[in-house]
Amino acid sequence: MITAIRDAWVITQDPQRRILRGDVVIDGERIVSVGGEYKGSADKEIKASGDVVMPGLINTHTHVAMSVMKGVVDDIPFPEFLDKVFKIDSDRTDKDLDIGTKIGCAEMMRSGTTTFVDLYYSEDVIAKAAMEAGIRGVLCWCVLDEEMTTQKGNPLQNCKRFYDSFKEKRKIMPGVGLQGVYVCGEETCRGAKEFSDEKKIPLTFHLSETRGEVNEHRKKTGKRPAEWLNDVGIFGERSIAAHSAWLTLNEVRAMGRAGMSISTCPTSNMKLATGGVAPIPEFIEYGVNTTIGTDGSTTNNSLDMMAEMKTLGLLQKSSRWDPTVAKAQELLDFATVNAAKAIGMQSSLGSIEAGKYADIVILNGGSPNIRPLLPENMISNIVYSGSSSNVKTVICQGDIVMEDGRINTIDEAEILSRSEEMWRSLCLR
Amino acid sequence: MITAIRDAWVITQDPQRRILRGDVVIDGERIVSVGGEYKGSADKEIKASGDVVMPGLINTHTHVAMSVMKGVVDDIPFPEFLDKVFKIDSDRTDKDLDIGTKIGCAEMMRSGTTTFVDLYYSEDVIAKAAMEAGIRGVLCWCVLDEEMTTQKGNPLQNCKRFYDSFKEKRKIMPGVGLQGVYVCGEETCRGAKEFSDEKKIPLTFHLSETRGEVNEHRKKTGKRPAEWLNDVGIFGERSIAAHSAWLTLNEVRAMGRAGMSISTCPTSNMKLATGGVAPIPEFIEYGVNTTIGTDGSTTNNSLDMMAEMKTLGLLQKSSRWDPTVAKAQELLDFATVNAAKAIGMQSSLGSIEAGKYADIVILNGGSPNIRPLLPENMISNIVYSGSSSNVKTVICQGDIVMEDGRINTIDEAEILSRSEEMWRSLCLR
Repeated sequence: MITAIRDAWVITQDPQRRILRGDVVIDGERIVSVGGEYKGSADKEIKASGDVVMPGLINTHTHVAMSVMKGVVDDIPFPEFLDKVFKIDSDRTDKDLDIGTKIGCAEMMRSGTTTFVDLYYSEDVIAKAAMEAGIRGVLCWCVLDEEMTTQKGNPLQNCKRFYDSFKEKRKIMPGVGLQGVYVCGEETCRGAKEFSDEKKIPLTFHLSETRGEVNEHRKKTGKRPAEWLNDVGIFGERSIAAHSAWLTLNEVRAMGRAGMSISTCPTSNMKLATGGVAPIPEFIEYGVNTTIGTDGSTTNNSLDMMAEMKTLGLLQKSSRWDPTVAKAQELLDFATVNAAKAIGMQSSLGSIEAGKYADIVILNGGSPNIRPLLPENMISNIVYSGSSSNVKTVICQGDIVMEDGRINTIDEAEILSRSEEMWRSLCLR
Repeated sequence: MITAIRDAWVITQDPQRRILRGDVVIDGERIVSVGGEYKGSADKEIKASGDVVMPGLINTHTHVAMSVMKGVVDDIPFPEFLDKVFKIDSDRTDKDLDIGTKIGCAEMMRSGTTTFVDLYYSEDVIAKAAMEAGIRGVLCWCVLDEEMTTQKGNPLQNCKRFYDSFKEKRKIMPGVGLQGVYVCGEETCRGAKEFSDEKKIPLTFHLSETRGEVNEHRKKTGKRPAEWLNDVGIFGERSIAAHSAWLTLNEVRAMGRAGMSISTCPTSNMKLATGGVAPIPEFIEYGVNTTIGTDGSTTNNSLDMMAEMKTLGLLQKSSRWDPTVAKAQELLDFATVNAAKAIGMQSSLGSIEAGKYADIVILNGGSPNIRPLLPENMISNIVYSGSSSNVKTVICQGDIVMEDGRINTIDEAEILSRSEEMWRSLCLR
């Protein structure tokens, strides 16, 4: 099956960061040619004259199933927020996890995301829903100390069972999650890291999101969370630390030496007023691979990576009093090539190049908010002027999951029609 | 001509902030009934079952004609930014002002804005373009000292001439602008204020956007800009101060006593890294009427009020380390009822109530990013989860300017097709 996308602007994100004009051709799951005019025949033609083709965005930190819990805990103090969310989280059913995941996947497709890294329990339910939706899930089962969890059985064993059942599924990559140092002792952390190393799968965890977390861990152990995790041996090239807003320069250096990744979540940190700002310029300087996450729908409250790139730029520039930090091209890199590297898929995702998976977003070039549109201002316009309203067609691993604004994979209206009842039963108690 | 919008969720923004379910009926330019089922016949039926009807958003600070200059001055230091923008600004033609305004108006319609306050020169050209686009312009001709301007003739006389020619035009309200204390001496300021008082029209000006502006004015006059403007007599109930990020509490109190309005521009301030954060909780405490502006396309770079409400909330919460400031309902109030008051139209704009102008936005209730959607989470979902992608239909003073994603008033494709050439001739020199 050959699909030809015709006459588009192509933001390749290749090593030279070229912007080309021409066709992108897909054979099955993979891209076979980029730029120029494709003279062969195609089974499917996508007219994209003047539209923008870019790599599918990669959201490296979310809790997708929480999408059914929107708007329940806004504008309140952080401790009250945590109480409410944990209470709801512990009462969820497979049915509302399924609906929540599908709502979140629909929202992500509609805002140009083709791959997401998830950290939650019941990733088996989430995996099935994501497979129906047709986008790629890097699904990290949340591991924590057995006495701290509401999961049935041992969390690490649950994670391993999930890995065994889903490791061969298309567009699903099972991973390992750690909730955070506040509920994960040394043995739990080591077990998770060993399993991640054994299977060569991502290990993601919350790190230094709040000042309280840092202070309490230091009181308990004499070390800050990142120092402690480094000493326990958790940092490595498959590690992705989410938030990472309250760090010292020594911690950043250690993370860089480990060759690890961070997922910065600017909207979540700002909305919860956790105070810290992830030190992006230092991450870059010391070689920490920087990526972006939306976090979940109770803290953001959207899963929109188009918006998140801009918000990250705004937060970095404003908090550093320096408009030259977090440039447009860097912000787009965080959400594409860097994120592909974080999940170990740099050779098959993150750019529009022959041989890579066809994970592609087409933006409507007829949108006034990104015009005038020229190679000279294209990256700026996508990052600073673009929005989810520009997303027209989305392709994940060769499958056209959304076309001309219509989702092809799941029955969006039917799913949404069941969401209000679930909100009431989860949130109105 | 009767138009009936059927079976929607209606965010009325009335004094009780009611959310109703039912019909909204428009007769000509005005709303005649809200909520319940309308039994009469209508010339035009708009099916909106489960959609969200809300007041058209009001952008209280922009330079709409700059929409043709997107992406030319990003990620660079502020002095370099100013040099480049002023250079381009002084070289513009009526033709590119016209195209720029229409692109900006299209972008604003597509993101739910029905009224904008503009500060620029050549407001006559901008007025004609806005009238074609069909949204409401409060167009404040920029007044500054004659020796500081590239305008032909005396700026205040130009402003008066503009007022005389456009004061009776539908959906156009001429106003007075002042560039800022750095190019406006006492006499210029007084002349502008007198004209605003005489005609009872808005007076808007940049105020304390940067620390440099404050320091230089204090060196020159011994007073901070807001102190000085207050002493010169510029503050009053028709005054709208844009930015207003570097203020003392005494200045805020003086602004409150004057009953004036501010237009905070969070994205612009963050992107330019001007450092200051507008003191919104203090504005509220001391009775300064708070509203929101996007600023122009070279600093934001979008004119999207759906995004701007959220960004303001994020900036306020994060900079105050307090998630309870700038609540969702307040943010929506800033962009509707407060903004209507700022332009002196509180009796005819800002809410969905019988007797007011039909300035209405319909959001697609079938969008996953705002679902589940219930009265309990509706305001949160619009402000924190909503985006321009949800905007479906836009009505301004009874005219359906956009319907089901299609702009009815101007030929968008034709206008956009001419924008690249203009960008090249303005920006590539």
